[in-house]
Amino acid sequence: MSEHKMPDTHPPKLCSYFAAAAAFRTGKDDPRNFLERCIAVIEAQDPSIDAFVATNLDAARKVADEASERWKSGSTLSAIDGMPVGIKDIMETADMGTEQGSPLFTGWKGGRDCAAVVALREAGAVIVGKTVTTEFAATHPGGTRNPWDLERTPGGSSSGSAASVAAGMLPAALGTQVIGSILRPASYCGCFGYKPSIGGINRGGSFDEFSQSSSGVLAATLEETWSVGREISARAGGDPGFPGISGPLKAPAPKYPRRIALLETAGWEKANNEAKQALMEGRKLLSSNGIEFVDKTSDATVAEVESAIVDAMTLSMSINAWEGRWPLNTYSRDMDRASLSESAQNRLAQAEKMDQDEYQGLLAERERIRELYASLADGIDLCASLAAPGAAPKGLGWTGDPSFVVPGSLLGAPTLSLPVLTAEDGMPLGLQLLGFMNQDSELFAAAATILSLFEDQ
Amino acid sequence: MSEHKMPDTHPPKLCSYFAAAAAFRTGKDDPRNFLERCIAVIEAQDPSIDAFVATNLDAARKVADEASERWKSGSTLSAIDGMPVGIKDIMETADMGTEQGSPLFTGWKGGRDCAAVVALREAGAVIVGKTVTTEFAATHPGGTRNPWDLERTPGGSSSGSAASVAAGMLPAALGTQVIGSILRPASYCGCFGYKPSIGGINRGGSFDEFSQSSSGVLAATLEETWSVGREISARAGGDPGFPGISGPLKAPAPKYPRRIALLETAGWEKANNEAKQALMEGRKLLSSNGIEFVDKTSDATVAEVESAIVDAMTLSMSINAWEGRWPLNTYSRDMDRASLSESAQNRLAQAEKMDQDEYQGLLAERERIRELYASLADGIDLCASLAAPGAAPKGLGWTGDPSFVVPGSLLGAPTLSLPVLTAEDGMPLGLQLLGFMNQDSELFAAAATILSLFEDQ
Repeated sequence: MSEHKMPDTHPPKLCSYFAAAAAFRTGKDDPRNFLERCIAVIEAQDPSIDAFVATNLDAARKVADEASERWKSGSTLSAIDGMPVGIKDIMETADMGTEQGSPLFTGWKGGRDCAAVVALREAGAVIVGKTVTTEFAATHPGGTRNPWDLERTPGGSSSGSAASVAAGMLPAALGTQVIGSILRPASYCGCFGYKPSIGGINRGGSFDEFSQSSSGVLAATLEETWSVGREISARAGGDPGFPGISGPLKAPAPKYPRRIALLETAGWEKANNEAKQALMEGRKLLSSNGIEFVDKTSDATVAEVESAIVDAMTLSMSINAWEGRWPLNTYSRDMDRASLSESAQNRLAQAEKMDQDEYQGLLAERERIRELYASLADGIDLCASLAAPGAAPKGLGWTGDPSFVVPGSLLGAPTLSLPVLTAEDGMPLGLQLLGFMNQDSELFAAAATILSLFEDQ
Repeated sequence: MSEHKMPDTHPPKLCSYFAAAAAFRTGKDDPRNFLERCIAVIEAQDPSIDAFVATNLDAARKVADEASERWKSGSTLSAIDGMPVGIKDIMETADMGTEQGSPLFTGWKGGRDCAAVVALREAGAVIVGKTVTTEFAATHPGGTRNPWDLERTPGGSSSGSAASVAAGMLPAALGTQVIGSILRPASYCGCFGYKPSIGGINRGGSFDEFSQSSSGVLAATLEETWSVGREISARAGGDPGFPGISGPLKAPAPKYPRRIALLETAGWEKANNEAKQALMEGRKLLSSNGIEFVDKTSDATVAEVESAIVDAMTLSMSINAWEGRWPLNTYSRDMDRASLSESAQNRLAQAEKMDQDEYQGLLAERERIRELYASLADGIDLCASLAAPGAAPKGLGWTGDPSFVVPGSLLGAPTLSLPVLTAEDGMPLGLQLLGFMNQDSELFAAAATILSLFEDQ
């Protein structure tokens, strides 16, 4: 379509709020100006990229002005005071609809903010708009395009969040991941992606009840990725009954990891040669800087973990099917079955064939794998892998293969995608880092070191 | 008020669906006739009792007719096929509103069934109406009256569910409990009350996100109490990530408990002499039938548990305050603060003073107490206590003291209230039984024996 042409500013450039913030204190710049620059990028590029379902720019400008005053007077509410943020459209916002990428929810408004958005507003953040999600944050795509190549998917389900950040429309956006919905689009679009430990960010008011799903962050820098997640958890906590993301409010200081386990996962067979090569060169770089690597050929526990997670996709999809039977069943019966995508109808059909006993067996298997993975922490600081088998696939009909990132979801582990690798055609590719449950802060400390080694090379 | 006078049929009589079902098979009676008898009681008594927010009798009659056909043809969907059930008004129903006992939600309709209601419909149950809840299932009362004495509270927050069952309007209704909201009204109104193990019944579509809250059942008999809960969990499972209520579909066969721990809890100091006396006579009855009792004077672990749960109320209220900050904060800011009750505003104010660290400390303390309680299971089959300090208090402004039942909520244990004791003024009083986590079936087996000993005395 003619309106979908690459902007003149290609390749896209991430826009960091923290990088600009130094000038807020001196008065040379302020959050309102920062917001206007974001709006200019949105107006120039979103007609081609379609990252947003809705925006509320009047409200955003008002809040940015208030933040500008606070920066001037030295009374900021948090490090993210005034930061423009996008919200995945399965999360409720008081001033905008929540349509879940489904025609069943066109125009739906709950009139309230989800817990994470309340926390963002309390921290002074500027809620700019709602970002496109696949239908019910599953697989049926929403039409967003990849800022690096408009003919490619941005990945899903947090499609609009990743694309808006990668295109430099926003410094950060919220996403959610139950299979691969934060790290995969982060990898495809070339931004940072963070899926916290399970329960890390309060999901109240998000249409997302899967037991292995987490709300998380897509952002322009590692520091902003941390700050957005941590400032939310400090105010809204994690899911009820979970401790939530803990650690310093500012991004943890870099800490040199001693030993990393390289995980192939089921993704390895699907990865192309360029992607494998990129990971192996990354390993070489880190090794040459004194970080020890182990893998399934050198470490028996890693081999056990590899073998336990090889079916992570099937196990996760089965758990999700049972857990997602509601509300698909009532949507199908009480709303309009024909408005559900074919993939949603298929998931419902799969769920209808399952029973509680089977589900209990799946939970037990997941718990067994989590315990095995936890035992890795004895000798290993973190795990690393690719975040995707290659560049974002061409076409908008499929959001891509999540094989590399689904193990992190199954494990409930904190995971990160760092935009430090390059895939075929010069497209971005993420380096995936996996930590241990409720040790998100330790993961970020190691990631900071790793990132600096890539940047210094 | 003149319309609130006791019905001629006082004292109220529970109406068992299972007792009637024998005649369904022979064709002497059928679910439609059973429903009509329920409707007759509703029409005669609900103007005085105010148990219902809404009913959908046309739909109920249609579903009851279908169930009647299935009973005739021997093709019932479950043991509760055709059973009229009431739904606490914090749980979504596709055909009725969900008002949460709050003017903020007057007329609110989500257009979908909550997971438990989907399961009930799949089991053939007849959804008769929505039952009155206190505001947001907390403390601010909704105006329902106690069927035993219209000048007394039915208890809360599952006020309408308990009153409708106790008055013989329905054989069963769904409730929820995070502090004492199922067992206390069951005790005050004289019906069975069951709070499953934490996560026992899928809460999808229920406005209830507290980590120690459970959906549960109020019913006319022990067997129906079990069947309603178990038939739901078989179809909708428990909360995502939890195994859900397990065990036989029909109520577990009676099993003689060997040893019971008598718990005083913080309620003992508040209990009146008649209530204490009733519990001691119950203990005597069971002892004389060969069941051994231990208590804090004879067993060191019981003494430790008593001392750990003495502050269960403070700990639970603090956990709930933090977890309930959202959505009260957005209701207060984005909807209408003045429409929140004073108690809701106070809970929000308490939450605003808390932080994530404090909450993490509370969770750790709860976990410590749960582990201590679990260690009781070594030598003890179940625990027993009162379900309330006495009869339902006079007046409708206060839903009564939950001291006896809040420990079960804190512990995440399955708990039951059996209507086998008598309080002052001839009012009903519940015997509380507490089991161990995810051993709901074992609790019901022991309860069946205990119930028969009371019935045979």
